[in-house]
Amino acid sequence: MIPRVALPWRNGLRLRVPSGSRGCCRSAHNTLRNDDGRPIVISPPLVSLDIPDDWAPCPAHSCFSSPISSSNEQTATVIDGKFIADEIKTRIGSEVRRMKEGIGMVPGLAVIVVGYRRDSQTYVRNKMMACAEVGIKSMVAQLPEDCTKDQLLGALSSFDGDPSVHGILVQLPLPQHLDEGKVLDVLRPEKDVDGFHPLNMGNLAMRGREPLFIPCTPKGCIEMLLRSGVEIAGRKATVIGRSNIVGLPTSLLLQRHHATVSIVHAFTKNPELITCEADIVVTAAGVPNLVRGNWLKPGAVVIDVGTNPVEDPSSEHGYRLTGDVCYEEAVRVASAITPVPGGVGPMTIAMLLSNTLDSAKRVYAFT
Amino acid sequence: MIPRVALPWRNGLRLRVPSGSRGCCRSAHNTLRNDDGRPIVISPPLVSLDIPDDWAPCPAHSCFSSPISSSNEQTATVIDGKFIADEIKTRIGSEVRRMKEGIGMVPGLAVIVVGYRRDSQTYVRNKMMACAEVGIKSMVAQLPEDCTKDQLLGALSSFDGDPSVHGILVQLPLPQHLDEGKVLDVLRPEKDVDGFHPLNMGNLAMRGREPLFIPCTPKGCIEMLLRSGVEIAGRKATVIGRSNIVGLPTSLLLQRHHATVSIVHAFTKNPELITCEADIVVTAAGVPNLVRGNWLKPGAVVIDVGTNPVEDPSSEHGYRLTGDVCYEEAVRVASAITPVPGGVGPMTIAMLLSNTLDSAKRVYAFT
Repeated sequence: MIPRVALPWRNGLRLRVPSGSRGCCRSAHNTLRNDDGRPIVISPPLVSLDIPDDWAPCPAHSCFSSPISSSNEQTATVIDGKFIADEIKTRIGSEVRRMKEGIGMVPGLAVIVVGYRRDSQTYVRNKMMACAEVGIKSMVAQLPEDCTKDQLLGALSSFDGDPSVHGILVQLPLPQHLDEGKVLDVLRPEKDVDGFHPLNMGNLAMRGREPLFIPCTPKGCIEMLLRSGVEIAGRKATVIGRSNIVGLPTSLLLQRHHATVSIVHAFTKNPELITCEADIVVTAAGVPNLVRGNWLKPGAVVIDVGTNPVEDPSSEHGYRLTGDVCYEEAVRVASAITPVPGGVGPMTIAMLLSNTLDSAKRVYAFT
Repeated sequence: MIPRVALPWRNGLRLRVPSGSRGCCRSAHNTLRNDDGRPIVISPPLVSLDIPDDWAPCPAHSCFSSPISSSNEQTATVIDGKFIADEIKTRIGSEVRRMKEGIGMVPGLAVIVVGYRRDSQTYVRNKMMACAEVGIKSMVAQLPEDCTKDQLLGALSSFDGDPSVHGILVQLPLPQHLDEGKVLDVLRPEKDVDGFHPLNMGNLAMRGREPLFIPCTPKGCIEMLLRSGVEIAGRKATVIGRSNIVGLPTSLLLQRHHATVSIVHAFTKNPELITCEADIVVTAAGVPNLVRGNWLKPGAVVIDVGTNPVEDPSSEHGYRLTGDVCYEEAVRVASAITPVPGGVGPMTIAMLLSNTLDSAKRVYAFT
């Protein structure tokens, strides 16, 4: 007979973040104590657990050969995201023409930008140019940095009521004084071409369901894997980073494709040990050179979502973009890898165009 | 200069399910070919990938000592789910009384049952009895096996319009002719005490958001871990099974608590290798004795959600309930383990009562 032990849950429960936790910079909770009265159950509200994933910065901004890659030979095929994205955009363009000729309509995308962050302005300009390329009508609402929530919601609802707009996106991040979550909740799932609405996210997560839109970057990652002939089902995949925009939906999407998924984040101890078991690594931590060559299983497929500006006096603007992966090392260990730039970036925009086209097709029942 | 290779995505893409995939019984897709015209992007609809997780049945229904546990000594503390659930129910009862005395209202739970499956009837009876214990008003709509979708939706909307009903649950599984997804979509998230609505699931998944309700079994699992003083943040957790009801929300919830989560399913090759790295194992595969002693890391905490009826001539009804874990082996390897029965089961019902109370408190703004 096995003794049953009533566990000492009265004695205060600790949600400790292990100090050794690699890249973890602060504790999730100092102490989580059981209240003798209310609340009935002691689980804290989930938002009370939400802490930014602050990764420890990597010492080397440009990295060097890791032990695992003794040779200087490149083994990896470079997955050319620009090439694949161009192929997709060509097809989208022909579909848009077919729609215009068939029913006299074109898809419409509206972008709302608040403030003048340089990176946001660049992203928006690139999206507009891509829309123009394929014949999608695009419009931008540029709001001042200090705009009120009501001004933002006003812009949203005017686009929402415009039947020529089939997709609306709010360029993130928003200034501190605006609550992204509350803003995105107002955006109808039917026009949520970014796929960030919780209803679309829930339908992405749940088997047997289909979201109206899959977030663009995760969709682009899977697209590159599929078009590169990479087997996903039954393979081990490690996703590094768990943001609502990339890491989370990528892990959900890989799982819908029957990968065995592990999610690494800033609280993960020894992330390299989990990463080096993966056949597929998707990294979206936003930490330059976080993933070294010796983090990778030889032959792994590496999708690098990171686009981190690092100083580079030799480059025109004094900085260059680098991924989360130490490319020079990884390219000698992986079987295939996406470059930064020219990998995931172009795919994200192509998927945005694809989502906008799909939305217009749905609205007009155009097949 | 690294050569860029345009990958041969024209040559037909294969989404193969590896034949060696443990417990995987059929292929997700025979061939996934790229169409030269539409669709624009070749990713298939996600639902077209959905295949039941058919686990290979385990040979032994009663299992024996595994290599890792040479001694016959029990090392594991038994996490007494019934004890913890009783504690929670006592507190819920006092809260219900406080509400009744304070505002003259009590929480109300409505259950809709279709057909007469023996297990469903038992579950519903247990839920009703638990409601009675704590003073929650409960009502059941029993519909015939062959009821139409409209009859079911009619029952749903009548409960939905009843202000004395704060929680509605549809007992699953539904008969084949009724689409669970479509039915659950009709249930308003505000009364979705099971937490199965995609909007609640999306808000469970996304950091910075709070679902109105967390699914009862996953919430019960976390509750047992927290009340047992088990550290979650920064620990490795493996969830076995990815159902919308248990596996998926459990993995999302563990991640919100900052565990490093891996999800094992029927397509996973060598699931034991992933499981034996975990500090916390939650298993919800529905396969008796799937998890052997040698699947576990010594000192792991094991939460066994499985409740599988197996033949047992010696027992009163000719069968007994067993978990997914080979208990006799695991109890010698783990540091803590939940028994079946008497582990997760009682917690699930306690969390349902807790969700129903929370819903009523929200409606009446009762704190």
